[in-house]
Amino acid sequence: MTRENDTQCDLMLFGALGDLAQRKLFPALYQLQRAGLLARNSRILALARKKLDTQSLRQQLRDKLSATIPGHELEEAVLAEFLAKIEYLPLDMEQPADYEAAARWRDENPVPLVVYMATPPSLYGTIAANLRTANCTGPSTRVVVEKPIGHDFASSQTINDQLAEVFDESQLFRIDHYLGKETVQNLIALRFANNLFATQWNQNQISHVEITVAESVGIEGRWGYFDKAGQLRDMVQNHLLQLLCLIAMDPPSDLSADSIRDEKVKVLKALRPIMPDMMETHLVRGQYTAGSSDGRSVPGYLDEEGADRSSHTETFVAIKAEISNWRWAGVPFYIRTGKRLPEKLSQIIIHFKPAPHYIFDPDQKHLANNKLIIRLQPDEGMSLQILTKDQGLEKGMRLREGPLELSFSEAFSTGRIPDAYERLLWEVMKGKQYLFVRRDEVEFAWRWVDQVIKAWEAHSGPPKRYAAGTWGPVASIAMITRDGRSWYEDA
Amino acid sequence: MTRENDTQCDLMLFGALGDLAQRKLFPALYQLQRAGLLARNSRILALARKKLDTQSLRQQLRDKLSATIPGHELEEAVLAEFLAKIEYLPLDMEQPADYEAAARWRDENPVPLVVYMATPPSLYGTIAANLRTANCTGPSTRVVVEKPIGHDFASSQTINDQLAEVFDESQLFRIDHYLGKETVQNLIALRFANNLFATQWNQNQISHVEITVAESVGIEGRWGYFDKAGQLRDMVQNHLLQLLCLIAMDPPSDLSADSIRDEKVKVLKALRPIMPDMMETHLVRGQYTAGSSDGRSVPGYLDEEGADRSSHTETFVAIKAEISNWRWAGVPFYIRTGKRLPEKLSQIIIHFKPAPHYIFDPDQKHLANNKLIIRLQPDEGMSLQILTKDQGLEKGMRLREGPLELSFSEAFSTGRIPDAYERLLWEVMKGKQYLFVRRDEVEFAWRWVDQVIKAWEAHSGPPKRYAAGTWGPVASIAMITRDGRSWYEDA
Repeated sequence: MTRENDTQCDLMLFGALGDLAQRKLFPALYQLQRAGLLARNSRILALARKKLDTQSLRQQLRDKLSATIPGHELEEAVLAEFLAKIEYLPLDMEQPADYEAAARWRDENPVPLVVYMATPPSLYGTIAANLRTANCTGPSTRVVVEKPIGHDFASSQTINDQLAEVFDESQLFRIDHYLGKETVQNLIALRFANNLFATQWNQNQISHVEITVAESVGIEGRWGYFDKAGQLRDMVQNHLLQLLCLIAMDPPSDLSADSIRDEKVKVLKALRPIMPDMMETHLVRGQYTAGSSDGRSVPGYLDEEGADRSSHTETFVAIKAEISNWRWAGVPFYIRTGKRLPEKLSQIIIHFKPAPHYIFDPDQKHLANNKLIIRLQPDEGMSLQILTKDQGLEKGMRLREGPLELSFSEAFSTGRIPDAYERLLWEVMKGKQYLFVRRDEVEFAWRWVDQVIKAWEAHSGPPKRYAAGTWGPVASIAMITRDGRSWYEDA
Repeated sequence: MTRENDTQCDLMLFGALGDLAQRKLFPALYQLQRAGLLARNSRILALARKKLDTQSLRQQLRDKLSATIPGHELEEAVLAEFLAKIEYLPLDMEQPADYEAAARWRDENPVPLVVYMATPPSLYGTIAANLRTANCTGPSTRVVVEKPIGHDFASSQTINDQLAEVFDESQLFRIDHYLGKETVQNLIALRFANNLFATQWNQNQISHVEITVAESVGIEGRWGYFDKAGQLRDMVQNHLLQLLCLIAMDPPSDLSADSIRDEKVKVLKALRPIMPDMMETHLVRGQYTAGSSDGRSVPGYLDEEGADRSSHTETFVAIKAEISNWRWAGVPFYIRTGKRLPEKLSQIIIHFKPAPHYIFDPDQKHLANNKLIIRLQPDEGMSLQILTKDQGLEKGMRLREGPLELSFSEAFSTGRIPDAYERLLWEVMKGKQYLFVRRDEVEFAWRWVDQVIKAWEAHSGPPKRYAAGTWGPVASIAMITRDGRSWYEDA
């Protein structure tokens, strides 16, 4: 079977008992098994420090998967076949000797190997070096790593250099799980397969773009970790800039990974630096105070468990980003993300310019711009806001704004939208890199973010306060209002 | 009440016992009454030759409306109030003396008068002259007339001249009931309130346009009448050219009746004449033979009751129309209409050009043009065909064509779409002419149609045969196939 030959590979999963592996990777692998996408004799080696045997891990996974996978997707035969692929090996990732058993496992079946490092990034280099020493690697090895790749440009270089000592860039699959979302991939089809949109996708026809990634949760017990990063590093440097790149990039000449990533890098390089004199107009940093979330009272960021009350770390950031190139000059990208916002919501809104001349009732002029709304969360889908004639007989030629809707969960016969990790793992198995982040993308994103941080450390005061359960500091609303616009949910 | 003052008028309805009045006008007036749009003391004078008294007419109308209006729209109080407005007057339209009673009725209430001539066009001049003689007309009188305005340019001039002797153009409301359809009016909102479409609406972005008005019925007992006209005069000269004008016109600088009609006339003047040497490539005439319709056998046109078996009259016509102006050069408008086609279907399809470069799977390239589908019948609505990523996990970046749907009957809270005649009567009462056809529109449409007929009479053979229940002669398919395209329902 061609498909099986193409995607035949074994998987080594470091950090197999961690949160990511348990919550995302094993369920995704189960779904791939269920979809018939895991080769029959493929194997999975789960690695972690804890002393455990294979049977115990399988039982743990059986319990966990049975509890979390929706009943109609849980098939005993599939589950049994899946668990049979899995072996467990206890290992101290910093002990080269521990890798020998892994090497023996590997040698039993010399197919391409996928190494998934679901570990802290500080271990990437160590694991890579130890794998090489144990002779586990080769030209067909693929390595999957997760964000964050460092906390600034310099530290990302260190990590990438360590990986590069062992692996070629073509072997490295850096995950930004936003790129695995159906809607995000759909941006590529939407922009480049539909000339109706392709011809409009520039400063002639688009007035501005909004990107919102709102979380309703707060810090969730990881205060110390988060406080060192902040929302800009934790969300903007990766997810929001990736979305911005996919919206803003020039059309690639083909769909190869490098053609796409070349275009994304061009966008990152063209991002206008946020200079000290732009602090007031282009940047809002916020930190939540006590308020309410989903109807219950919640503490402020400085009152969370483990908090240092003098922290100036931002839990909200809004930026008026500008792209200095031919396509986007004069078109602001208003991006914002924060914790303890009123809802979990990720959406991109393309605001098209109004027609040059307006002939309908003057009091409806504010309606006269089309919007394309791309929802990533809570439900993936797109809608195009267009104006039609209001239908009532008495109304004459009155306009009405209405959506042309495309809801993915309803529109497609398969019903189920694959989780981002299913898509991404499947692409790794196929060896396709176009949904993964190339080194220079990481680096140019950090350069821009570093520059923002440098400017605000020198010139900006502490973050503005906002009550938990609101859409961030009023300064965020003021920033966009100053340009005569508003965030979409306020409309 | 302002509305009542603005639209206060009485109605004189000539041909009150005829098919149009009974089937369309009285039901529409009832619906206006139900919507509260008929002024409280407005009156309706029904006129026809038959000896009948008011009570009998009211009873007839009560029976008929009760039988045909959907139960939930039938309200006894509304019906009673409506019928109370109606009086009947027997009259021979050619007898000036008979108009004196109408004049007395009129003098009882000197509000603006609407005269609706639901009669053969040959009587328009007579009625107008007799009304003037009886002193029934004045500057506030509005006159509604129905198609056909003549059967060619010369005869339309005669009719229009007769009307013009009594009435100013600003008093004349020529009905093409297609202009009363919600979707048709919506074209104006769609095109000029949505810059997303407005910027695309030209030969740069549109490859071609299809307009189909298909009837499943045959001749329905009016063979003699139809045979003198044919499908070109009966359908193209009015409905299809009106639709073509609304799709093709340049944006009017405002929504006034004359601004819109000026633009429509410009399109008619720019229609490229169908010359004798274009017969093969630009014109198909058809005549149906025996076949089946809705599952039952039906006779051919020449076997219908009352048929002259040597008739060469067309029951189908397809034209590749071209508009010689800056906006539409090189963009064919394929229009077709016929009787005994497989279904009752009116739709306009805007085919956008594909993107200049294609980067998806080669075998899907044929999908890569966006289409805007505007349905007038059977269900009014619009859909925009766009390409998205097919969702299956295995599928990688495969495209899928899907509609962004706007169905009027579902999308609007009022639920009920007003019938075209309700809309048109209401616009007459308001004195708004933008949905009515101006004299020069009629005349330029006839000039173009006359020229087509002249060319085919001199250079074309008898109409091509097509079996009832098919989409017309194969020559119609060949005409569009020759250009590398296909009629939409074949796709």
